Amino acid sequence: MNIDGKAWRTIWLEEGGRSVGVIDQTLLPHRFETRSLATVEQAAEAISTMVVRGAPLIGVSGAYGLMLALQQDPTDRALAVAFERLNDTRPTAVNLRWALERVRQRVASLPESQRAEAAQAEAGAIAEEDVAMCEAIGDHGLRLFQELAAARPAQRQNRPFNVLTHCNAGWLATVDWGTALAPIYKAHRSGMAIHVWVDETRPRNQGASLTAFELGREGVPHTVIVDNAGGHLMQHGEVDAVIVGTDRTTRSGDVCNKIGTYLKALAAHDNGVPFYVALPSSTIDWSLDDGVAEIPIEARSAREVTHIQGRRDGDASAPAAGDLASVQLSPDGSAGFNPAFDVTPARLVTSLITERGVAAASEAGLKGLFQDLRRADR
Amino acid sequence: MNIDGKAWRTIWLEEGGRSVGVIDQTLLPHRFETRSLATVEQAAEAISTMVVRGAPLIGVSGAYGLMLALQQDPTDRALAVAFERLNDTRPTAVNLRWALERVRQRVASLPESQRAEAAQAEAGAIAEEDVAMCEAIGDHGLRLFQELAAARPAQRQNRPFNVLTHCNAGWLATVDWGTALAPIYKAHRSGMAIHVWVDETRPRNQGASLTAFELGREGVPHTVIVDNAGGHLMQHGEVDAVIVGTDRTTRSGDVCNKIGTYLKALAAHDNGVPFYVALPSSTIDWSLDDGVAEIPIEARSAREVTHIQGRRDGDASAPAAGDLASVQLSPDGSAGFNPAFDVTPARLVTSLITERGVAAASEAGLKGLFQDLRRADR
Repeated sequence: MNIDGKAWRTIWLEEGGRSVGVIDQTLLPHRFETRSLATVEQAAEAISTMVVRGAPLIGVSGAYGLMLALQQDPTDRALAVAFERLNDTRPTAVNLRWALERVRQRVASLPESQRAEAAQAEAGAIAEEDVAMCEAIGDHGLRLFQELAAARPAQRQNRPFNVLTHCNAGWLATVDWGTALAPIYKAHRSGMAIHVWVDETRPRNQGASLTAFELGREGVPHTVIVDNAGGHLMQHGEVDAVIVGTDRTTRSGDVCNKIGTYLKALAAHDNGVPFYVALPSSTIDWSLDDGVAEIPIEARSAREVTHIQGRRDGDASAPAAGDLASVQLSPDGSAGFNPAFDVTPARLVTSLITERGVAAASEAGLKGLFQDLRRADR
Repeated sequence: MNIDGKAWRTIWLEEGGRSVGVIDQTLLPHRFETRSLATVEQAAEAISTMVVRGAPLIGVSGAYGLMLALQQDPTDRALAVAFERLNDTRPTAVNLRWALERVRQRVASLPESQRAEAAQAEAGAIAEEDVAMCEAIGDHGLRLFQELAAARPAQRQNRPFNVLTHCNAGWLATVDWGTALAPIYKAHRSGMAIHVWVDETRPRNQGASLTAFELGREGVPHTVIVDNAGGHLMQHGEVDAVIVGTDRTTRSGDVCNKIGTYLKALAAHDNGVPFYVALPSSTIDWSLDDGVAEIPIEARSAREVTHIQGRRDGDASAPAAGDLASVQLSPDGSAGFNPAFDVTPARLVTSLITERGVAAASEAGLKGLFQDLRRADR
């Protein structure tokens, strides 16, 4: 997608594949910098510190991380070590293991001399498929938005279509297009009047920092709100639809996504607002049924709750190195707890928007679209 | 309540009533400073900038503001101007108008020479009544907590009683004791094992800053969480009860409180967790029935969303003047919207805890406890 008129992806090969370029998402929206990852350790560190984040992008980053490992040491033992190192970086997103498995299976039976090249091809294929899946999600979601907008009461027809989103499931979370934001970009590019309520998404504020950055650079009208405000907006008819991404989806349609998603789903349900989850099929975990009971929830550092990073005030005209600052929010001596995800039960999800179309959030719904994948996976 | 072993109230008379002392709550938890308010303009400014905040404390501050005005000019005209100036500072809390009306009625028929003194007596009476009401709320709430704790399954009996609260309805929001936190202080002082989940409460973070400060200084175990986390904790049995305050309560039991309260009420309802609202009867607006439709919701500055204040990192050992910093969270060019309150429908409220006891959140429930007030008010 566009940044100041130039098209970008979130991850790319450099030096003919000897290193991998990424956007450092920990510095956005205040500084736009890229990083080169040249070793598997650098790739793992980029994932765990959230230089790259978002379930689909984590998967692709992991795949390229295996490529970097095999360039340095193509042995079985090195492959196994690199696989575990990368897989341990983030426990909740299922795409990571899925992408790592795919590269491992591709290279395992090959002679060592061919492994790095094959890993590069497979990681590249995963990246290209991710772009295609996200664009297809965008097209399916756009049709849904158009139907919903047309079905609004006459007195609302001349207002923009108001979508609320939580966290960042935009192009920065994928390779391009995004999942939840793909239909929004498609709608905006098609000329549909659309406006996005952006949940700031504490503790790491991926909404206020990344989603607002993306939408602003692409020119999509949007307004940042605190995570507490969405229910009030829905009560007052200010939200036509909610759309979010997911880090893992069970076969029954339970959705594990950024902490706080469940609260927005409850509010949407209470106010008759449709609640959509956009996902490439790589985020479906066919082995799980009950998301609340079965999905491991990553607890991150309490410091993400007690402190926050931003741009030092008064520096607006001169963003430069050193202008980012971290401030402490809570008193010394107060502990914090920081679960990173929650699970929204399928009963609160209106539909799942996938690369193959729209499905009910249920085993029957997912089975209808993905019978082939499901068989292959089990 | 206690700060480092010394008992404090949030508001007091100085110089025999020529000025009013308050704690500057905009600097907490990082700096503890008091301010002297000597004019009605200073009182109004202290309310609108949230140097003092919390519905009950706003009421008392407004009452003392009228006293300060009448000390300078006891005419009818000055009284009317001061009333409007103070009443316009915050539109949502009903205590403010209630307290201002009470002082005005007390002084209106008096000769000008007696008005300032009468206003001082009336404001003082409102403050003392607030302390008594809050302590009574604490006693009623404590009994409720004891019953709930005893009714827990055997395997949970040896865990602390876990209460989640949103925003700050503690002693800093009142004159002393607090509303929602009063039962928690009573429980802690009675020796009950209690632990509080503190919602940080964006945008102004009254939870992370004020509630955490209060609880820490009184020695009550607590953990700060982001506003997004409460639903997840309730899904996993980590919350035995939710308790919040209210800025205005309709006669039907709808509760207007800090933005985000509604989301916690939905989560409590979805998980069978009791949801309590603690209120002195001065926050009941007997003229209103439908809170969502009828209560005006204050929209505050977008800057409270796009920026946040904290203590500059690395200064923990030397908190001193100048150590507070404001940082910008969202990108330049992204708008913010900042509704300060939302309305929780009575159907989501388990009970109201008042100074006269516990009532159902309904017209019948409130009527049962407050028949006399209700008649007088209409």
